[in-house]
Amino acid sequence: MEDTALLTDLYELTMAAAYFENRHLGTATFELFVRRLPPRRGYLLAAGLEQALEYLEGLAFTPPQIDFLRRHPAFAKVSEEFFHYLSRLRFTGEVWAVAEGTPVFANQPLLRVTAPIIEAQIVETFLLTTLTFQTMIATKAARVVASAAGRPVAEFGSRRAHGPLAGLLAARAAYIGGCAGTANVDAHFRFGVPSFGTLAHSFVMAYDDELESFREFARVFPEHSVLLLDTYNSLHAVDKIIAAGLRPYGVRLDSGNLAELSKQVRERLDRAGLHATKIVASSDLDEYVITELLAGGARIDEFGVGTALATSNDAPALSGVYKLVAYEGEPRVKLTEEEDKASYPGSKQVFRFVEDGVYARDIIATAAENYAGSEPLLTCVMRDGARLAPAPSVHDMRARAVRLLAKLPPSVRDLTNPANYRVEVSAKLKELFAETKQRLGR
Amino acid sequence: MEDTALLTDLYELTMAAAYFENRHLGTATFELFVRRLPPRRGYLLAAGLEQALEYLEGLAFTPPQIDFLRRHPAFAKVSEEFFHYLSRLRFTGEVWAVAEGTPVFANQPLLRVTAPIIEAQIVETFLLTTLTFQTMIATKAARVVASAAGRPVAEFGSRRAHGPLAGLLAARAAYIGGCAGTANVDAHFRFGVPSFGTLAHSFVMAYDDELESFREFARVFPEHSVLLLDTYNSLHAVDKIIAAGLRPYGVRLDSGNLAELSKQVRERLDRAGLHATKIVASSDLDEYVITELLAGGARIDEFGVGTALATSNDAPALSGVYKLVAYEGEPRVKLTEEEDKASYPGSKQVFRFVEDGVYARDIIATAAENYAGSEPLLTCVMRDGARLAPAPSVHDMRARAVRLLAKLPPSVRDLTNPANYRVEVSAKLKELFAETKQRLGR
Repeated sequence: MEDTALLTDLYELTMAAAYFENRHLGTATFELFVRRLPPRRGYLLAAGLEQALEYLEGLAFTPPQIDFLRRHPAFAKVSEEFFHYLSRLRFTGEVWAVAEGTPVFANQPLLRVTAPIIEAQIVETFLLTTLTFQTMIATKAARVVASAAGRPVAEFGSRRAHGPLAGLLAARAAYIGGCAGTANVDAHFRFGVPSFGTLAHSFVMAYDDELESFREFARVFPEHSVLLLDTYNSLHAVDKIIAAGLRPYGVRLDSGNLAELSKQVRERLDRAGLHATKIVASSDLDEYVITELLAGGARIDEFGVGTALATSNDAPALSGVYKLVAYEGEPRVKLTEEEDKASYPGSKQVFRFVEDGVYARDIIATAAENYAGSEPLLTCVMRDGARLAPAPSVHDMRARAVRLLAKLPPSVRDLTNPANYRVEVSAKLKELFAETKQRLGR
Repeated sequence: MEDTALLTDLYELTMAAAYFENRHLGTATFELFVRRLPPRRGYLLAAGLEQALEYLEGLAFTPPQIDFLRRHPAFAKVSEEFFHYLSRLRFTGEVWAVAEGTPVFANQPLLRVTAPIIEAQIVETFLLTTLTFQTMIATKAARVVASAAGRPVAEFGSRRAHGPLAGLLAARAAYIGGCAGTANVDAHFRFGVPSFGTLAHSFVMAYDDELESFREFARVFPEHSVLLLDTYNSLHAVDKIIAAGLRPYGVRLDSGNLAELSKQVRERLDRAGLHATKIVASSDLDEYVITELLAGGARIDEFGVGTALATSNDAPALSGVYKLVAYEGEPRVKLTEEEDKASYPGSKQVFRFVEDGVYARDIIATAAENYAGSEPLLTCVMRDGARLAPAPSVHDMRARAVRLLAKLPPSVRDLTNPANYRVEVSAKLKELFAETKQRLGR
């Protein structure tokens, strides 16, 4: 997207004005994390960092945006100096983050921003929506891919995504989460995510004769045609394909009893010697339906998954927050009546311990600590507002996810009733929390 | 978004190539509709047409996009003429649509496209994601606004939206659905949706003293400050505000037992003579929680609703489809083993009957029919690829929604167990279905 500076909540800008007018302009540190794992999730898979850093690097208000704010009624009493300041504002801070394709858990910072407080504050909305959306989708994808037990899963959900950009970003995140590719062509063009396609019912319907539509499609796509069976009757369609001597790459089932139909279609294909022809299935699939289909002996070789992958429909939002943890180097914390909304003060690091190739436990600690034999998850990715390295390719992120997900204990990866992974809080961090609380007089 | 032509599913483009190579280039008519109302919904509120028409008007492939497609493995056997054709392609068709802010029901076309088949086909993905997402959010907003029983509702959900553009479009749709405004500044800048803001916990935490943060904020925003109470302890905070003689526009509660806290805060404010100070509540609200809060006597004057409005989290996708209904003027239909996936052939119109100012019933009919005393919902909005009129303002769309929602029978508007609104299929359309089925030999 272009000109994204106003993609923020108004209160970010009113707070910015209040900080500016009161010359309360110290350096602040914020951390972005997810409070709770959504239902049935034992882990999250981090994604979206590349778009977050691109946004920070490009952050700038255009003259029309500044003019708009100047005339906004909320800013009636704000000085012209503030608008001048905003017009020159760039993000100059430091960012630490967890690499895309890394499994993470509740309350672990995905991102830590340290910058002059106005810069660190106004980026909250964009960072949250970008990181939590892609993390949510990558997580869903990892689950769906796991349910398919080695069979390729393609992301087909752009039409059901929350607008066109959501479809594009979901395709990216789903690939990082382990999908074989997407139907979204723009995700291929912009990010290099492999794109696949079959054909729609409308294609079959645009011909007077179903077989004629198959022949004409197969003629143009001799190696790539996946013929759609269920426009009129799936078994009749496969019989016609066989009788006509077509040898498509695959056939697709998009309605009906997929387990039963797939067995009957496989039987007919095999009987005709079309052993190489794949059976692709779609139709409101998700990790639960796929598990059931495979348990029922469905003969499906590839899955196309739409709504579930583009919207994470059984858990369509993460409890992502962006919390001030330090101001002018001094730890800060929000206290609250609700225990589960409390968080820890100060800059943090997450240390992960691996035993025999399996993740054993994490420690959330102060950033100053160090644990021998563990891997720190957050690394510095931006300094003085500039990225320290180009983003890895989506292929590398996907390979990382595959490698690291395999290190999660299988019980934590369970799709319906996952075990809690062991995440501890360091003694130093607990101490800091107690001290900060005391300092606040509570 | 810029350069949106590739925001489509690959199969739209492979089908386009197959149509082109086989010179199967007749005029096609597609209709976009939602198959089923989501759980607990008795109606949908149409939205998103302006963005859909903008996309159609601007549709064009850039040279880098064409080059990308030329090198895509799926197109290896496709002729250079096809890419030349694509490079000059513009949308030249006719569009009929339901106006934004109109209540609609399952199986009623929101949009009908008639164009050369390639043009009509490749726009499927973008049209579906754009219209169904905003329709879903406008519907959710109408529900949340109804639950607030006259109290203003502001949309606060950009941070939980499915990426930055989803937040922007959700803010627009939520306003059309009846919200008072949004926190999303870009929705104000780009669409004119009023934007509101309060302050965040981080602002309070960035000061050593809570009261100091309130004073400094109120100094800069004397008429607009909504002070956030629950950073440390909500009742202590309101006591400090009163003792300091601040007279904010409002105070906000964002955690804890909102019903109880709001009563206690109201009592303290009133006792101090701050009768005009509003109590604003947020914290994972939706139509169900708001109904319960008000039933419990909560003293809340305004609501800020985030996740629910930005994601329609209890029903985060609509069963939107885009179906070929005619080719070269001849009606087409998809038959299927699943009854609920069947649809009717031919161009359609929806006729709505009003009795005593209340919607009485709709008839889904062939476009050629006419019913005296009814209002046809679809009107022609684009001809030869050009819009016939500028889009109404979002204010007009919102006013239309308010006016038309009031005409729905209250039983259909019920938030948990709505009655079915009466939607009939005309005798002519049923006849056409039978004829088409017979022609297809079934």
